[in-house]
Amino acid sequence: MNGFSFDSTGFRIDGEDRYLVSGEFHYFRVPKADWRRRMQLFREAGGNCLATYVPWLIHEPEEGDIRFGDVDYRDLAGFLALAQEMGLKVLLRPGPYQYSELDCAGLPGWLFRRYPEVLARDTDGNAFNDFAVSYLHPVFLAKARIYYRAFAEQVRPFMAENGGPVCMLQVDNELTGVHVWFGSLDYNRETMGFGEPDGRYPRWLRAKYGSVAAMNEAYETRLRSFEEARPIAAADRKSVASCRRVKDYHDFYLGTIAEYAGLLASWLREDGLGGPICHNSANPGMNALFPETVRAMGDGFLLGSDHYYTLNQSWEQNNPTPQYCLRVMMSCDTLRALGMPPTVLELPGGSPSDTPPILPEDLLCCYMSNLALGMKGLNYYVYTGGPNAPDTGTTCDVYDYNALVRADGSLNGTYASARAFGAFMAENSWLQRAHRVASVQVGFEWNTLRCRDYDPDLPCGGAKIAHFLERGVLYTLMCSRFSPEMTPVCGRLDPSRPLILPCPSAMSAEAQDAALHFLKSGGNLLVMPAFPETDLDFHPLSRWDDVLRGASFLHDQAVGPAVEIEGVGRVFGISRATVCERLPEGATPIAFDARTGRVLGFELSVGGGRLIWFGGTWEMTGFPQAQMMERFLERLDARPCVASSNRNVFTALWTDEIGRRMLFVLNPYSGAQRTRLHVFEGGGVALDEMALRPMEVRAVAL
Amino acid sequence: MNGFSFDSTGFRIDGEDRYLVSGEFHYFRVPKADWRRRMQLFREAGGNCLATYVPWLIHEPEEGDIRFGDVDYRDLAGFLALAQEMGLKVLLRPGPYQYSELDCAGLPGWLFRRYPEVLARDTDGNAFNDFAVSYLHPVFLAKARIYYRAFAEQVRPFMAENGGPVCMLQVDNELTGVHVWFGSLDYNRETMGFGEPDGRYPRWLRAKYGSVAAMNEAYETRLRSFEEARPIAAADRKSVASCRRVKDYHDFYLGTIAEYAGLLASWLREDGLGGPICHNSANPGMNALFPETVRAMGDGFLLGSDHYYTLNQSWEQNNPTPQYCLRVMMSCDTLRALGMPPTVLELPGGSPSDTPPILPEDLLCCYMSNLALGMKGLNYYVYTGGPNAPDTGTTCDVYDYNALVRADGSLNGTYASARAFGAFMAENSWLQRAHRVASVQVGFEWNTLRCRDYDPDLPCGGAKIAHFLERGVLYTLMCSRFSPEMTPVCGRLDPSRPLILPCPSAMSAEAQDAALHFLKSGGNLLVMPAFPETDLDFHPLSRWDDVLRGASFLHDQAVGPAVEIEGVGRVFGISRATVCERLPEGATPIAFDARTGRVLGFELSVGGGRLIWFGGTWEMTGFPQAQMMERFLERLDARPCVASSNRNVFTALWTDEIGRRMLFVLNPYSGAQRTRLHVFEGGGVALDEMALRPMEVRAVAL
Repeated sequence: MNGFSFDSTGFRIDGEDRYLVSGEFHYFRVPKADWRRRMQLFREAGGNCLATYVPWLIHEPEEGDIRFGDVDYRDLAGFLALAQEMGLKVLLRPGPYQYSELDCAGLPGWLFRRYPEVLARDTDGNAFNDFAVSYLHPVFLAKARIYYRAFAEQVRPFMAENGGPVCMLQVDNELTGVHVWFGSLDYNRETMGFGEPDGRYPRWLRAKYGSVAAMNEAYETRLRSFEEARPIAAADRKSVASCRRVKDYHDFYLGTIAEYAGLLASWLREDGLGGPICHNSANPGMNALFPETVRAMGDGFLLGSDHYYTLNQSWEQNNPTPQYCLRVMMSCDTLRALGMPPTVLELPGGSPSDTPPILPEDLLCCYMSNLALGMKGLNYYVYTGGPNAPDTGTTCDVYDYNALVRADGSLNGTYASARAFGAFMAENSWLQRAHRVASVQVGFEWNTLRCRDYDPDLPCGGAKIAHFLERGVLYTLMCSRFSPEMTPVCGRLDPSRPLILPCPSAMSAEAQDAALHFLKSGGNLLVMPAFPETDLDFHPLSRWDDVLRGASFLHDQAVGPAVEIEGVGRVFGISRATVCERLPEGATPIAFDARTGRVLGFELSVGGGRLIWFGGTWEMTGFPQAQMMERFLERLDARPCVASSNRNVFTALWTDEIGRRMLFVLNPYSGAQRTRLHVFEGGGVALDEMALRPMEVRAVAL
Repeated sequence: MNGFSFDSTGFRIDGEDRYLVSGEFHYFRVPKADWRRRMQLFREAGGNCLATYVPWLIHEPEEGDIRFGDVDYRDLAGFLALAQEMGLKVLLRPGPYQYSELDCAGLPGWLFRRYPEVLARDTDGNAFNDFAVSYLHPVFLAKARIYYRAFAEQVRPFMAENGGPVCMLQVDNELTGVHVWFGSLDYNRETMGFGEPDGRYPRWLRAKYGSVAAMNEAYETRLRSFEEARPIAAADRKSVASCRRVKDYHDFYLGTIAEYAGLLASWLREDGLGGPICHNSANPGMNALFPETVRAMGDGFLLGSDHYYTLNQSWEQNNPTPQYCLRVMMSCDTLRALGMPPTVLELPGGSPSDTPPILPEDLLCCYMSNLALGMKGLNYYVYTGGPNAPDTGTTCDVYDYNALVRADGSLNGTYASARAFGAFMAENSWLQRAHRVASVQVGFEWNTLRCRDYDPDLPCGGAKIAHFLERGVLYTLMCSRFSPEMTPVCGRLDPSRPLILPCPSAMSAEAQDAALHFLKSGGNLLVMPAFPETDLDFHPLSRWDDVLRGASFLHDQAVGPAVEIEGVGRVFGISRATVCERLPEGATPIAFDARTGRVLGFELSVGGGRLIWFGGTWEMTGFPQAQMMERFLERLDARPCVASSNRNVFTALWTDEIGRRMLFVLNPYSGAQRTRLHVFEGGGVALDEMALRPMEVRAVAL
């Protein structure tokens, strides 16, 4: 009776298509006497699963003294038994990392006191944080292995395959965070094997370059061996050759992350724990760090992401916003691109700070926005809290978290939001097998979303294009009648919908070829702001020469203030752009610098497809930019999805195989808004004018 | 009949205490045929003044071809005559700078084409922006002088002293912005006189140091003369000596700003224009750049500030927030500290971006929050817009700005917000002579608020303390029953209210002496997190030795996670602090590191006053921090102002000489909130529970 499974579309729970509705419930904090009542309250709020960290520092307070069940706050087995009795599944997260406002992020203090060699190091060899380990350090692994085995002993009887409630296990937590948030990747010499012929890093270099000569050519160095190679800090990249060194280490480092995650998973298997394994990217921007890990983990692995909107006064915003919605959409789309049902493994259930407050309207808006933009499963962090075990908390003695159910057991005002949301999910579980309708595909390569630390400073550098993709392309599309979906260029492209390609100067041969293949076999393609010129290692590479025969371009030219778009008129907000000096054969110019008449865009038939190139980038400021985008997409025969008379009201339309449709209308602002909607998809429906309250997300069954 | 005046408390307009309610109304954009109707609409919204830029690029399209009145969009005189007829005063802003989404920020393009030598330069001698001038460059000044004279000719008959409507003139716009926003101060060699015995910079150094030897000692250099000295970039400061060089140039540069503002003012006087002169700091954070300018401008000068909450999707927040409220309060308090009635010379009337939208509720919240926190006068930017003159706009052809009255003359939804706000100000004009009640004074020195670019990286460096002042001290106080007011330590301190001194390691002798004098003559003082150790030039200086006899401290110690506060208990959120190793004679410890027992705070009687020292800093996260602050202030006999059962509801209480009282209750969040309020000040009133809508600011007459 395996009552829990998922595929790339959604979850099946106890034989039905259902949202995974999990709530973080720390048996090591919540008073045991109140477990049952709070579990019942969670069921009433629509919950079907509980999640909890299983903190190493709680269960191994002194080295070798591993304790389970001696006191209530270590009674994992009691917790699991009760969850089963209450009909709730359980997701266990044994770390080693937890964060969770625990001392040393949940690792035991003795580890760092006794074995300081496990600390992560920067390029100068200095430890940069008191509790950041080098994940693959042998001493750390030896200690963690012991804890994992003890954990497995406790949990085995409660695994789903043994008839228990534990449906999934999470390895580690928010991987890479403990390094990058504190200022550095990990360059621990022993872990990475610098100087060792058989060290991880020299081996990686050997596998990539084959010969020392090839490495030296790429790096512009005169090293005598792979083991002589040392990484340089991101800040020290000055030349293209040094960018290659930084990028290589970044790729190598992400490989070690995959190795570490795989190792933790193998321990679970060795100790007899089966079933799905998961991990949570710390935020939408980090999802792109995990393709290697997903590949290493293989089938049955679930990568989710954490979607907080505020945790303290220094966050960008106090409430869900359009900017938050865009990041949520990007996160869900990139998770799906990795083969996952988009799962928010930490969806706010409160906040560690008393201010800014987590208010019921905001929270419901957050929940509904996540669902509207792709979420298929979630875990409220935290559903409920309680007193910290002695000497374990870093932010409080009583971990209340302003959560849905307070530390003292009372209902927070936000509990009603979760209950309303739970009811919505239960009533609309058909959405598990449905998908968000997208008019266009926004193509990306993973490298573009993670190259910030190593890309050279070029006019069309990857970090700039990633910014354009989010703040320009996606934001503009959300203000248009064409709905976007992010799709890997090298993945399965749908030839019936246009592909928009925000194009960095560095792109792999595979991605270039995939876009060209799409085009030549009849797809319609919009490329902005320039065609790629190198591969991902910054070696010259362009596959576009035959398509662009006769064309020449100049990058980073001053243009504007207005550009003239055929069929639209003057559009502002683009001040530097790539300019086409000579058109490719057969191209029709469609965009111009209004002042000089220089060509900023053209349309060209290629094979069976149509190509539009536009040389500008922008951050969405004015609605004429949305009109421009709409014009380009009309020329590429995109099918409109939903038009909103008020472009500041976002929409998301869902449909399933039998044609059911649900329209979400989002007002992620603190003021009321009105709009009139026209749904194109599915035959055409005009809705009555709609008045939306502040922070309202309305679901309309069509 | 001079119907316009102000003092440090407020404005008098036509013989009455009234809010200055100005609206930016560009005669060079708004169609002339609609001027009268829109002026009437502005009066109906409570307006009593219009403001407009008088853009150089509009009136001198080619060098020497100065035009006024030849076409409608240059009809300044017609505009002024009509304003007078409509009973509206006028504030004119002839630049030279305007911004205003105009080409070259409102300067004529020929200036830069013909005279590129006027451009500002970075430390490498490179121009860093196409339209950033070196303000005091002789060629720029010569050209600007001609334009100013032509402006004066036009305006003289319309000046208030000549019976006209023009009540105030603004010199330049958002000074320093065109440099610092584009990456550098101005290091134009010709302007600053590097290498010239009589150059500005060598003269400044001579005045400061007297001898080359003294300069060399401070800088650790071996220069042979003052003219040999060259500034270094802020990024190049590595040692204390290099910090001195960067700070000196910063101070010198601000002196040139004062000189430039004074020069523009002198031109107006030379050309026979009298009356008040004003300038606008670009944002609250920049107010501290202007003490030199205020001193140079003398009586009759009004420094205001611009208080936008969003201008595009990349701003921190889309709507007014508590963080915005704090900055507004800091701005109003610092303007008042400079002797000004707090005036918001650009209060949003819309936004140049279509998204995020400016919504009526947000805008009214913004207006009421500004008023509640100190604003006595305002200028809506913009009240209304219209088509740009040919080839002058950078963001659009029709400058609509989503303003209160749209470019096409229709009323925006936000017009009602301004009208309601105008009615409130008219009904409550007694507030012009009233003041916000403050329980405590938060002392500051200007240097602390502007030292970010030159302070050494020390545990109690000025930039860190400025951050603590805002995100720690002020935020915490707003969540407490004690209301804050920022007061310069060297200004007039009120001995009846405690002084809180967030204390950087560098503080002038004057400021140290002022705080000590306050204490010794009976004032109660709270110092955090450490006592000053150097003067503003980073030379050792502490005036506290006799007060702290026998004491010794260690900075930047790891503490926490909890600190134990006498009378409160365990408080979290402080992880590094100054620790007192040996108490001063007679001191009573009142705060401890909960883990080690080390002393983090003490109380000490000094002369007639009481001193509390606390070694921690924090960013406000948990309400126990507010309880800690309340406990310290109780011990210092502070009078509570207003207690809110919901600490996330902010309050501001106003009173006047005859005891009228008005309580403002602020909910700057996107969700509803409830609270029960108790007003201590003025005898004690408990109010019924209050439900506040999202973004509601409620005014309660007591």
